[in-house]
Amino acid sequence: MSLSPTPRTRVRRHHDRQREDAAELAAVLDEARVCHLGVVDADGAPLVLPTLHARVGNVLYLHGSSGAASLADGLQVCVTVTLLDGLVLARRVFAHSANYRSAVIRGRARRVEDPDEALRALEAFVEHLAPGQWDHADRPTRKELASTAVVAVNLDEASLKVRAAPPGDSDAVDAGDHRWAGVVPVRTVLGSPQPCPRLPTGVGVPEHVRRWAGS
Amino acid sequence: MSLSPTPRTRVRRHHDRQREDAAELAAVLDEARVCHLGVVDADGAPLVLPTLHARVGNVLYLHGSSGAASLADGLQVCVTVTLLDGLVLARRVFAHSANYRSAVIRGRARRVEDPDEALRALEAFVEHLAPGQWDHADRPTRKELASTAVVAVNLDEASLKVRAAPPGDSDAVDAGDHRWAGVVPVRTVLGSPQPCPRLPTGVGVPEHVRRWAGS
Repeated sequence: MSLSPTPRTRVRRHHDRQREDAAELAAVLDEARVCHLGVVDADGAPLVLPTLHARVGNVLYLHGSSGAASLADGLQVCVTVTLLDGLVLARRVFAHSANYRSAVIRGRARRVEDPDEALRALEAFVEHLAPGQWDHADRPTRKELASTAVVAVNLDEASLKVRAAPPGDSDAVDAGDHRWAGVVPVRTVLGSPQPCPRLPTGVGVPEHVRRWAGS
Repeated sequence: MSLSPTPRTRVRRHHDRQREDAAELAAVLDEARVCHLGVVDADGAPLVLPTLHARVGNVLYLHGSSGAASLADGLQVCVTVTLLDGLVLARRVFAHSANYRSAVIRGRARRVEDPDEALRALEAFVEHLAPGQWDHADRPTRKELASTAVVAVNLDEASLKVRAAPPGDSDAVDAGDHRWAGVVPVRTVLGSPQPCPRLPTGVGVPEHVRRWAGS
């Protein structure tokens, strides 16, 4: 599937960095654990809050914590997800940059009212954050489910911008210039699981967590 | 110094997570390499874009890439910085959460017009991204400086929210419940520097980069 930029999602600066592959967009949303949700507040000022998200097909669900909890149905939102991949060190200060993948989704919030859809969204949140936990933990009670605000945003109006390149001044490098230039990779890693202080002694980290957590 | 919450920066949900120490706010802004800048576009819709930042005292500078380049002087902005510290795995799906530190700064953008202030901001960007590079690389030319948009936002109206705790259901744990629960730490690491393909052979990674990059 291809992302067809609308006037609102066409990248203006560095438009050569715009990608139009929906699978690439999905991969960025799935890799990131946090998104930034932007709304316009009652006074007309912008407000940006971090929240957890999960993608199911062409829909991005936002967890009803912080900002998302007070989102009115139909409110205009912008959800941005950024993965920093590298620090770009150049010979000129001006050519310093960052390698990154960044998705910007614009649309309207839809409050999820259907309990079945809300349950599937919660499953997606948990499995996105900590694969395997949906089967390990107690499912939400009816009361918990009713108190969780879930917001859905369609991925119809989304853009993806990627920089994955050496320093921008590499073409103009003087043969006599022996200053180091390059990219310092940045990545997110998971550490060794820290048990809850109330955990009964002798309970080890389960296999489904050891599969993806650090050791 | 203490952050005195205004009605706009008082944390509504989980207000026990609000911190009021300006030094803690500064530490979060300094540790994060990317921020998310929110504005209201010409059609009244929210727009959130990632950008590079650097803090100098009580001022946060935003690099004039992507969104910041088109920011009008005096425009209302919201700058949000989030550090994800851990995945919180609980016994109940509902109690799953994340440990994080998140700063939200609201205010008005000030276009930096003074070349000396713009130069100091560029130095702060470069030293924030890659300490030591300001002295290693060619300083911006007058032309480069003139083409760089720098935006300043005051830290007067800022809030910091922190979750750094075990799973929220740990108090209610049943003695007979032997399911693992705890926190999987998340951290950002730097990899081994990748030389620019045009680098002359034999040029090694300089000492000032080896000090903070991975090996």
